[in-house]
Amino acid sequence: MRHLKGRLHKAADEKVAAYTSSLPFDWRLYRQDIAGSIAHARMLAKQGIISESDSVLIVQGLESIQQEIEQGKFEFKAELEDIHMAIEARLIEKTGEVGGKLHTARSRNDQIALDLRLYIREVIAQTINSIRELQRALVNLAEANMDVVIPGYTHLQPAQPVLLAHHLLAYFEMLQRDISRLKCSRKRVDVLPLGSGAMAGVAYNVDRDFLSRELGFDQVSQNSLDAVSDRDFVLEYEAAASIGMMHLSRLAEEVILWSSAEFGFIELDEAFATGSSIMPQKKNPDVAELVRGKTGRVYGNLMALLTTMKALPLSYNRDLQEDKEGLFDTVDTLLASLDICTGMIATLKVNTENAAKAMGRGYLLATDLADYLVRKGEAFRNAHEIVGRLVSYAVKEGKSLAELSFAEYSNFSPLFDKDVYTITIESSLAARDTVGGTAPKRVAQALADAKKTLGQGS
Amino acid sequence: MRHLKGRLHKAADEKVAAYTSSLPFDWRLYRQDIAGSIAHARMLAKQGIISESDSVLIVQGLESIQQEIEQGKFEFKAELEDIHMAIEARLIEKTGEVGGKLHTARSRNDQIALDLRLYIREVIAQTINSIRELQRALVNLAEANMDVVIPGYTHLQPAQPVLLAHHLLAYFEMLQRDISRLKCSRKRVDVLPLGSGAMAGVAYNVDRDFLSRELGFDQVSQNSLDAVSDRDFVLEYEAAASIGMMHLSRLAEEVILWSSAEFGFIELDEAFATGSSIMPQKKNPDVAELVRGKTGRVYGNLMALLTTMKALPLSYNRDLQEDKEGLFDTVDTLLASLDICTGMIATLKVNTENAAKAMGRGYLLATDLADYLVRKGEAFRNAHEIVGRLVSYAVKEGKSLAELSFAEYSNFSPLFDKDVYTITIESSLAARDTVGGTAPKRVAQALADAKKTLGQGS
Amino acid sequence: MRHLKGRLHKAADEKVAAYTSSLPFDWRLYRQDIAGSIAHARMLAKQGIISESDSVLIVQGLESIQQEIEQGKFEFKAELEDIHMAIEARLIEKTGEVGGKLHTARSRNDQIALDLRLYIREVIAQTINSIRELQRALVNLAEANMDVVIPGYTHLQPAQPVLLAHHLLAYFEMLQRDISRLKCSRKRVDVLPLGSGAMAGVAYNVDRDFLSRELGFDQVSQNSLDAVSDRDFVLEYEAAASIGMMHLSRLAEEVILWSSAEFGFIELDEAFATGSSIMPQKKNPDVAELVRGKTGRVYGNLMALLTTMKALPLSYNRDLQEDKEGLFDTVDTLLASLDICTGMIATLKVNTENAAKAMGRGYLLATDLADYLVRKGEAFRNAHEIVGRLVSYAVKEGKSLAELSFAEYSNFSPLFDKDVYTITIESSLAARDTVGGTAPKRVAQALADAKKTLGQGS
Amino acid sequence: MRHLKGRLHKAADEKVAAYTSSLPFDWRLYRQDIAGSIAHARMLAKQGIISESDSVLIVQGLESIQQEIEQGKFEFKAELEDIHMAIEARLIEKTGEVGGKLHTARSRNDQIALDLRLYIREVIAQTINSIRELQRALVNLAEANMDVVIPGYTHLQPAQPVLLAHHLLAYFEMLQRDISRLKCSRKRVDVLPLGSGAMAGVAYNVDRDFLSRELGFDQVSQNSLDAVSDRDFVLEYEAAASIGMMHLSRLAEEVILWSSAEFGFIELDEAFATGSSIMPQKKNPDVAELVRGKTGRVYGNLMALLTTMKALPLSYNRDLQEDKEGLFDTVDTLLASLDICTGMIATLKVNTENAAKAMGRGYLLATDLADYLVRKGEAFRNAHEIVGRLVSYAVKEGKSLAELSFAEYSNFSPLFDKDVYTITIESSLAARDTVGGTAPKRVAQALADAKKTLGQGS
Repeated sequence: MRHLKGRLHKAADEKVAAYTSSLPFDWRLYRQDIAGSIAHARMLAKQGIISESDSVLIVQGLESIQQEIEQGKFEFKAELEDIHMAIEARLIEKTGEVGGKLHTARSRNDQIALDLRLYIREVIAQTINSIRELQRALVNLAEANMDVVIPGYTHLQPAQPVLLAHHLLAYFEMLQRDISRLKCSRKRVDVLPLGSGAMAGVAYNVDRDFLSRELGFDQVSQNSLDAVSDRDFVLEYEAAASIGMMHLSRLAEEVILWSSAEFGFIELDEAFATGSSIMPQKKNPDVAELVRGKTGRVYGNLMALLTTMKALPLSYNRDLQEDKEGLFDTVDTLLASLDICTGMIATLKVNTENAAKAMGRGYLLATDLADYLVRKGEAFRNAHEIVGRLVSYAVKEGKSLAELSFAEYSNFSPLFDKDVYTITIESSLAARDTVGGTAPKRVAQALADAKKTLGQGS
Repeated sequence: MRHLKGRLHKAADEKVAAYTSSLPFDWRLYRQDIAGSIAHARMLAKQGIISESDSVLIVQGLESIQQEIEQGKFEFKAELEDIHMAIEARLIEKTGEVGGKLHTARSRNDQIALDLRLYIREVIAQTINSIRELQRALVNLAEANMDVVIPGYTHLQPAQPVLLAHHLLAYFEMLQRDISRLKCSRKRVDVLPLGSGAMAGVAYNVDRDFLSRELGFDQVSQNSLDAVSDRDFVLEYEAAASIGMMHLSRLAEEVILWSSAEFGFIELDEAFATGSSIMPQKKNPDVAELVRGKTGRVYGNLMALLTTMKALPLSYNRDLQEDKEGLFDTVDTLLASLDICTGMIATLKVNTENAAKAMGRGYLLATDLADYLVRKGEAFRNAHEIVGRLVSYAVKEGKSLAELSFAEYSNFSPLFDKDVYTITIESSLAARDTVGGTAPKRVAQALADAKKTLGQGS
Repeated sequence: MRHLKGRLHKAADEKVAAYTSSLPFDWRLYRQDIAGSIAHARMLAKQGIISESDSVLIVQGLESIQQEIEQGKFEFKAELEDIHMAIEARLIEKTGEVGGKLHTARSRNDQIALDLRLYIREVIAQTINSIRELQRALVNLAEANMDVVIPGYTHLQPAQPVLLAHHLLAYFEMLQRDISRLKCSRKRVDVLPLGSGAMAGVAYNVDRDFLSRELGFDQVSQNSLDAVSDRDFVLEYEAAASIGMMHLSRLAEEVILWSSAEFGFIELDEAFATGSSIMPQKKNPDVAELVRGKTGRVYGNLMALLTTMKALPLSYNRDLQEDKEGLFDTVDTLLASLDICTGMIATLKVNTENAAKAMGRGYLLATDLADYLVRKGEAFRNAHEIVGRLVSYAVKEGKSLAELSFAEYSNFSPLFDKDVYTITIESSLAARDTVGGTAPKRVAQALADAKKTLGQGS
Repeated sequence: MRHLKGRLHKAADEKVAAYTSSLPFDWRLYRQDIAGSIAHARMLAKQGIISESDSVLIVQGLESIQQEIEQGKFEFKAELEDIHMAIEARLIEKTGEVGGKLHTARSRNDQIALDLRLYIREVIAQTINSIRELQRALVNLAEANMDVVIPGYTHLQPAQPVLLAHHLLAYFEMLQRDISRLKCSRKRVDVLPLGSGAMAGVAYNVDRDFLSRELGFDQVSQNSLDAVSDRDFVLEYEAAASIGMMHLSRLAEEVILWSSAEFGFIELDEAFATGSSIMPQKKNPDVAELVRGKTGRVYGNLMALLTTMKALPLSYNRDLQEDKEGLFDTVDTLLASLDICTGMIATLKVNTENAAKAMGRGYLLATDLADYLVRKGEAFRNAHEIVGRLVSYAVKEGKSLAELSFAEYSNFSPLFDKDVYTITIESSLAARDTVGGTAPKRVAQALADAKKTLGQGS
């Protein structure tokens, strides 16, 4: 009976271990964990909490463990529930009782908070780098196609001529905001939680400023209960990533539209499209579709952690362990999606012929015609009405605006003069000569500014 | 037949009008819309696009419309689809053809982007003010209860003694981050979109810097397509609000727990609790429950807009109209929840007797005992094991730690000395004497810092 | 001082009342509330808990209150916190002490659960009706365009010919599942909670089966604690609504694509498009864009309630009050969106010329060519490879498949025979002659089945 | 140069392969994929599309591949992008050209839809089984503690006495709805998509009814475009799983509360709690916390797929590949959480002493006192008021209701009689003698019904 109970218990223990263990995913934090422990060991020695020689042994042990992990020689034992225990257990194997001193004046609660902050700090830098690469690809594509005009769309209906470069630089701006947002968030990541202990602070004469300097933090946390309970910095990264993926989903949508047979503005490189064995001319934008589709998981990860954090009493609760898998998935997805978009944009070809053909659809210069009347003295709302009637007439007659005779123009307003025929796509573009407008010289300036931004690095 | 068709069309028109109209909610932006239009009219005159006298008439007209609205005399006609048209139509009623000139060099696309940015700029300031009030209430409550000790919890199990003030100041820190986050986000709100036109820029010699100064913006937008398509600033506010509501939900959860019969640490003021007619002694924490429950809608609004924005091609699409109702609901919910929490915290009473009773549960000084052994020379991991066995023994004997004889202590480690009896709740608290720790002098310092922060305003 | 305190309290009371009151939205449940109360009063009399004459007075009072509400004569007093209190207070005004007996053997906790269930039961029926209308519009449009062929798309790339009717009927199927899902969910709505009291059951000899029959329920709830804590039925409706809105968002996306200048397969009726004053030929699909955009709020409402319900301990908590506003918004949005889609589909025109033009893009018969070779004996994977090479050749030569000479065909496989020229769009369609395939006779059958389904009603 | 380009292309290809490959996760569908292929091969032979002997070779090949996979001998080659290609490629390796015939009259689009449907069908059955186990554990715990009374809570405040068994059976009811919901959803899963081809149907004389019978489906899909685009059945499972996890999160919350030092109603088994090395008496409910925390990811997965599906045009788009990882995670999380809850409930101990102590808090019999007055003839609302005043008086006097003298009772109402002292916890429980009430005989009946339900299996 006792034996049976033992076995049953064993089964339960295994199930529970599988359910609660974070080692299968938090092993990814080994570098951060070791870096944090090395700083901690040095601080303990500096403060006389452990001896200098113990500290040296611990640091050496940790460094050799890092090597073991990076060389694939480290055994991640399933029974150790997290990366902290896995590393500490190995350290004790290597250094004996000395290793058992490392955890003095520390708890897994402040330790994991530290590891995550170190991780996100790195990830923010990587994300910014990847965004820069995509910006570079957009700028290059814009620069190589400065003379290409496409319809500017509202409601997916052609509205006014714009430079393709102008359209591409709109994404440059979105990505610029992504970088700005990430940089801002660093301020709230860059806070050392170590020294908060389990949640009340530690009963040792630790030097938190030393730790902070060693690990390159800006500040130390000001409240121990908060420090072990806080995951704002994870949420803030996930929120920024969600907005970033939203931007990529818009880019992906346009790539899909533009590479459709109906639009045909661009042709994807073979490397970034999937062919059909049977329709080899067909280039499916699978990559762009996946970028668009993966937006869902990044949103989902944000929603997941927001849900998990809702209504948790202080301080540390095991629920917090659920912060990591979603974060890792978001980081992996965002970095890969940025990278893949960079390649896709860098290699696609613009089909100028189809772009030109699209300019013939719609009466893209109607707004310019109204602006013309306003400049001749008509009130804005009246000018719109007059042009509306004129375009209606042209549609009925099956004529383009250029094909209307001067007499026809004059029927609609006495303000029309012969110079009405000087309204062209080129004049329309040139007229949008304000900061942020699509006038070629403004776009050239925006491009130059963008290159300067990229040149300066992040 | 034709008549019937007419009627059917009418029915369809009404349905569609009801489905597409934003006036029922965007009327809230009337102040922002009028402020933007006044600046626009002045700029048009300054640039010679309209005459100075027309500008004066327009500005006067707009100011009188604002009065009409604020005095409840303005008729919001259902057939006008949004606040922009409602105001412009009234302006034309008042000023005739002159009013028709206001919309020169502008589109509803850049106009609504402007209104929303002006609105969020104000809302950020209001939110920060409301957060400050709640911080003030927390600080006051902490200060009035500096001598109250409660169990610090991990996993909702008593773990170590902490000052109640320390626990309350954890929320001060969370709120401090909320403010920091909102301030950071202002940078991306503070961008003037006006001058982007429908999406290509405008064909007039506008002065965007003048507009920016008039309306108090930091920068002008750099890409017209982006400027009319961007709702990042709404998402960023909603993400910050979600994190903020999550903080409030944690506070609400603790208020609910602490005012339960089982914890009993606090008693809510009658104004912030709901009585039962039949059980008058019962004070239901309905207000805290609603704060906790309303977290859902704030998360939901974020998810809603993220979904709406997903995969939208440039530039303006009508989907963007869906940005407003969720935002307004989030703003109203967050501001009201902050306000209600402020009142609830400001008026609650601490039940020191029950807090003291709770200190008797658990062996809250076990960690201190281990720290004691470490200071006597034991390695950390060993010290933990020894104390573990000692506490097990005490549990079995039904004794508190203070009730164990010195002989009993000595059975577990030769390192125990008579001074083991100096370990008390007071000594435990005092020992956490590091930045962010619960030592009374540290908490006093944190409180002083918090008051300084509040004194300096935001 | 006392006076001041009184005033402060008053301000707090007003704030709290505004924060906690549900009357501003739950007034919508007045019919359900009154119907439930009438059944309850009758049951109380039948069981001898109140007198028959009291019951008659109560029922008459409730009926007159319903009239008052429907005639706009009922005053919803702000100080009454919900619809239940508003109606009961008015009943007591009308009937005196008798009215005070209605609430015997009942609590607001089981009362609101009842009201919501009655409401959702009605809403399910309305939703199914609205879906039926949209199905009808789709069937009519399909029937009127049985001869129109469009490219079937995968990855938004033309792949194979399909009948437009076949494409439209795909939406019929989605909507059919929406109906099936809603019908299934009724089983879990159709449960009477009344008689559960505050949460422990009631201490009166109530007849729950009588109540159930009076109110047309299928079952009575089996556990009082669960009955007042359960909002599964709200979540289930919101989940079904989310899937339904997702379907509508796909339809809306196609309407937007198809009415673009580039696709041009359809033209929206003026009533369901928004014109531009200046580009009168432009028909912006604003209505479809809003359907697509409103998908966000329906998802958001689901996420909101899931969040609210997370980790609530039993039994009734005030958080549950947050169930209603999101539900009402979801119901309003879904019903209006279905209705608007019905009108939009019912009135749009198919542009057969543009559809025909689109058939010329891509090599839409490539699959048929491979199937041809398979039927001649080639293995499937080989056939695909051969056709792939053939199409590549045709692309290079700038020829359509029909323009290739027989010699050219023969270069790629000896299995090609002269009958290869009988492969046409028509033969391609006709060949997909399986259940669910696009062969005209299959589509005709599917259409007939659909009409039969609609004829049978829901 | 060409060489460099080649290398660059290779790098791009690898990146793209990593980004687009689903093999790392869809290998889990190998059994479903092989079962589908075997049925397909048999059908092709039956219809004379391939020869009987080819079919036999294919089936044997597929069966041996399944063995290889299950014995860990199958090499999942990274360059094969999904499980379908991995298996087909291996089949061709084994059987040569014959294997190339398997994919006749099929596309990966209908194949993956089939695999997913087969998978979810199995998963629904597994989920129901796991729910049954948890119900069994709840019923056993209820039965073993039929005499334990706890406070019934509203607003986490003690309100009325309930049987612990009654409280536990509330969860039985929630789980019963989960089963009902899953069973309902099967109807929409049980539809064969095979035969829909890429999206237009197939150009072969396939027998879809035969396939349906072979694979045990109820129906065949009625529209090929819909069949390859539909993921409703995944969403519906994820929505049901979200509601199910919400139920578990409520149970987990109560386990956490009840095992706190303050409530103390239960003690978790060591196997389902995490000890602290230093506070061995402390049992942290980590397992319950993780159940509560993991609710987030299940919600997140639902939100992710809803987002992914939003506004996708027909028919197959690569975005759909994003359906699987979230689904697998939801299935794994839900099944593991159910299993872990079963173990946790099955092994916990009830602390009857603490439960009894809790019954002393609050005036839990106040409602019974009001009901007493109603039975004596007082109107309900008046009775509530009288008891309210009485309880206030008792609170002030520091007496329990039982300690009040008859004179004191009489001061509040002349209707009080000596039998007022017969109101006890037992009488209170017994009085809730309606279906779903907490009267011991009703709970015994509910328990008997529950056992019958479990006995009958699902």
